[in-house]
Amino acid sequence: MKTEKAAKEVVKEIKGKIEDTKGLTVKKNEDFSEWYTQVVQKAELADLRYNVKGFLVFQPWSVMVMEKMYSYLEKTLQQKRHKPYFFPTLIPESNLKRESTHIIGFTPEVFWVTEGGDKKFEERLALRPTSETAFYQMFSLWIRSYKDLPFKTYQRANVFRYETKATRPFLRSREFHWIETHCVHATEKDAEKQVLEDMQTTKEVLHDVFGLPFIFFERPAWDKFPGADRTFAADVLNPDGRVVQQPSTHLLSQAFSKGFGVKYTGADGKENYGWITCYGPAVSRIFASVVIVHGDDKGLRLPWNLAPIQVVIVPIVDDPKVMEKADNLYHKLSSFSNVEIDMTNKSAGEKFNHWEMKGVPVRIDLGLKDIKEKSVTIFRRDTGEKKVIREENVLGYIKKLAEESGKILMRQADKVFDDLIINATDLKKAKQVIESGGIVRCGFCSIEKDGASCSDKVEESTGAKVRGRKFDEIGKTKTSGVCIVCGKPAKETVYIAREY
Amino acid sequence: MKTEKAAKEVVKEIKGKIEDTKGLTVKKNEDFSEWYTQVVQKAELADLRYNVKGFLVFQPWSVMVMEKMYSYLEKTLQQKRHKPYFFPTLIPESNLKRESTHIIGFTPEVFWVTEGGDKKFEERLALRPTSETAFYQMFSLWIRSYKDLPFKTYQRANVFRYETKATRPFLRSREFHWIETHCVHATEKDAEKQVLEDMQTTKEVLHDVFGLPFIFFERPAWDKFPGADRTFAADVLNPDGRVVQQPSTHLLSQAFSKGFGVKYTGADGKENYGWITCYGPAVSRIFASVVIVHGDDKGLRLPWNLAPIQVVIVPIVDDPKVMEKADNLYHKLSSFSNVEIDMTNKSAGEKFNHWEMKGVPVRIDLGLKDIKEKSVTIFRRDTGEKKVIREENVLGYIKKLAEESGKILMRQADKVFDDLIINATDLKKAKQVIESGGIVRCGFCSIEKDGASCSDKVEESTGAKVRGRKFDEIGKTKTSGVCIVCGKPAKETVYIAREY
Repeated sequence: MKTEKAAKEVVKEIKGKIEDTKGLTVKKNEDFSEWYTQVVQKAELADLRYNVKGFLVFQPWSVMVMEKMYSYLEKTLQQKRHKPYFFPTLIPESNLKRESTHIIGFTPEVFWVTEGGDKKFEERLALRPTSETAFYQMFSLWIRSYKDLPFKTYQRANVFRYETKATRPFLRSREFHWIETHCVHATEKDAEKQVLEDMQTTKEVLHDVFGLPFIFFERPAWDKFPGADRTFAADVLNPDGRVVQQPSTHLLSQAFSKGFGVKYTGADGKENYGWITCYGPAVSRIFASVVIVHGDDKGLRLPWNLAPIQVVIVPIVDDPKVMEKADNLYHKLSSFSNVEIDMTNKSAGEKFNHWEMKGVPVRIDLGLKDIKEKSVTIFRRDTGEKKVIREENVLGYIKKLAEESGKILMRQADKVFDDLIINATDLKKAKQVIESGGIVRCGFCSIEKDGASCSDKVEESTGAKVRGRKFDEIGKTKTSGVCIVCGKPAKETVYIAREY
Repeated sequence: MKTEKAAKEVVKEIKGKIEDTKGLTVKKNEDFSEWYTQVVQKAELADLRYNVKGFLVFQPWSVMVMEKMYSYLEKTLQQKRHKPYFFPTLIPESNLKRESTHIIGFTPEVFWVTEGGDKKFEERLALRPTSETAFYQMFSLWIRSYKDLPFKTYQRANVFRYETKATRPFLRSREFHWIETHCVHATEKDAEKQVLEDMQTTKEVLHDVFGLPFIFFERPAWDKFPGADRTFAADVLNPDGRVVQQPSTHLLSQAFSKGFGVKYTGADGKENYGWITCYGPAVSRIFASVVIVHGDDKGLRLPWNLAPIQVVIVPIVDDPKVMEKADNLYHKLSSFSNVEIDMTNKSAGEKFNHWEMKGVPVRIDLGLKDIKEKSVTIFRRDTGEKKVIREENVLGYIKKLAEESGKILMRQADKVFDDLIINATDLKKAKQVIESGGIVRCGFCSIEKDGASCSDKVEESTGAKVRGRKFDEIGKTKTSGVCIVCGKPAKETVYIAREY
């Protein structure tokens, strides 16, 4: 016979299991790392059990969101006159060697193909870690005259990096899905304009559509893209105060055009090397930021424009009149949104939890009371509000919600970011800010090579890294004070944050 | 001083060069192989100068058409309840070995990744030649009960085959772009229904939208997909009488589910192995068929629904009134089509050739006469007709053309196919049919293993291959007569054709 205590244990254990299959067992703000792990699994975003380390299986919900992301990004790039290409996944080792900094930067991370069938290749072929060295040899064949410029390209591709750091699903995997743009310009000034355009594209898509707040930093000399003259990268803030590097745009200037012979004849008949820029929004990584920035203790919260299902109708009783009304609503709403009726055998509570975990923006609950009163109950995932709406107003209400929902998530995210930047004038204070989950703003001696040793000391003292100078402060905000490390006059105002 | 003869040679040479940059120098029906090579280059579909053998750079025009193809295929698959996944590109060698026929079939064609950074791997990783062995190990984790079935998936992916045959752009490359579907069913009957559904999908998309005529054959035993129980493949006909294998759907039955432990518990509580099917439309290869089937001596002819630009407006004089009218038309037509105004500095003739080469369905020529007479001149690429239309009727005319244009190309293609199938009762006649560019229909002893030696003799005598039995004749058309090779009573009616 079981004792009362033992029985209680059993009940507790069963409850734990039910909890486990139903929702998240930790709060985002209390244990972010565990929260993320659970969301990836419970919202069925990726399966990590694939038997090659650091590779993951992207499940339907994440693929469908990422396809929408691709669509927004590609549309925007095409409007800005980038043309799409598909380049080979394999790049000969000799290509990678044609720009010396590039090969040094990427060699430790390259997967090598060395055999085909039973034949050993004479030269190793890289699985592209990025495609500069594939594109630019073709550019040298395609570009002849200044009339061909600007030459603006992009490709949607999967790329491979043999990461030595710990991998995290979507954030850092050994294969990821991205877009890379590569452009050739006639002058340095045109190349600089392209960098601005890339930042603008990031704003138009990542911020205005996906609702992600970010800051563009110019990276210090020791943290540039291998082969780049200047690197500008968007840092998105995680709720635990860490930043995630999102799209970066690089002024490659002429190093690669010299390595690959990308030349053009000017209007004056003289031959010049092209000025090259590239830009890389990593869609699978941006997806991670959408999950992280908007998600809450119940799961994902997807912006309307990214949600694979935008409205879910949940009949809470099995009744023909309720089903008829569900069908009616389905047809009306289908004209401007992706709708689904949840006809599974689960309980209403389970259905609610399921769709909240998935982040579907709108849920319509239908019961007998709704039939009688010609109303529907609408739950919105962005604010968590539940409202009873008269039947004839449903369409208008949801249309309005579709428009404002993305903006509400965006404003919530923006606000979090603003509150977390704090000035510091010494490393002790900086450490406190970092440990409380903030971003430090401070004076710094130099972001050129000679600042590297101060940067190392920042990392030692705070566990965080110098992200660089804020792009929109360059040449605009006067830098005063001294370097937070060495005390010499500060040439720059920089930001310090922990990174993922 | 040049002689008259030498001067003539120079003129001829220059003319040759002009010709070369302007249009195709061979007729499709006279030298198909050279025609195809020229179209790929002159319509700027792919650049073959990339420095890894058998790999090509897909240029914007082909990428944009292929993106539309992906969109039609994915939409249709999703409507039929396939869910999208992204699986890793790399598959461990041990996975490939878990179904014995499969590894034997694919081993000669696999690219192997053996190193990452400076580390040599203990186990080789295949660049996926196809993904059965990646999907099915995950299916064994995901599928538990009959309630999970049918389990219908797909992925958009690039795949790799170290082809030993000569490569041809889009038709046979070492990296190509495709969709692969993988489904698990509870019973053999359900799996058979899926094969029918895959054929229906092929019809709805490849025939009804892309305008490609094909015949579904059940492949003989010696020509099945490695690991499949039965293989059904769509053969599209090239104008030179050769067939191109397009999507194939495979009844894998239980060989893979046994190899990977894909099991489910039935309603009766008993454990069963799943019945697996897979289907693979190779988008880059289908693109080749669209080029080949619809193209003519002036270049591509794209169906309206696949054309990246559907209407091009060519101002044939530089006049503000003409430009104003061009702008007007642009805005009106943009509401239902992709329009472009050709503002380049080329001559009208060069512009005409350019857009005909690209296969744009509709061209509007605008001159001063058109302003005066309130009319426009419309050239349609499908029929080659030129018509003067009154301004107020332009929209209606083009809308109608958009609807019927695809169908016109489709009917033209269908007709070519029908005319080319010819019955034969002996190998001499079969050879004649094949050499005149036809497809042979004849009696055959068996498409099981015991028919292989007769099949070899067919190939020796005619240079063509037994494609199999026509799917819609199976069990419907009575087979009579004798095998065209051995003279034994014919169990099957088969088709013989040369293949690409």
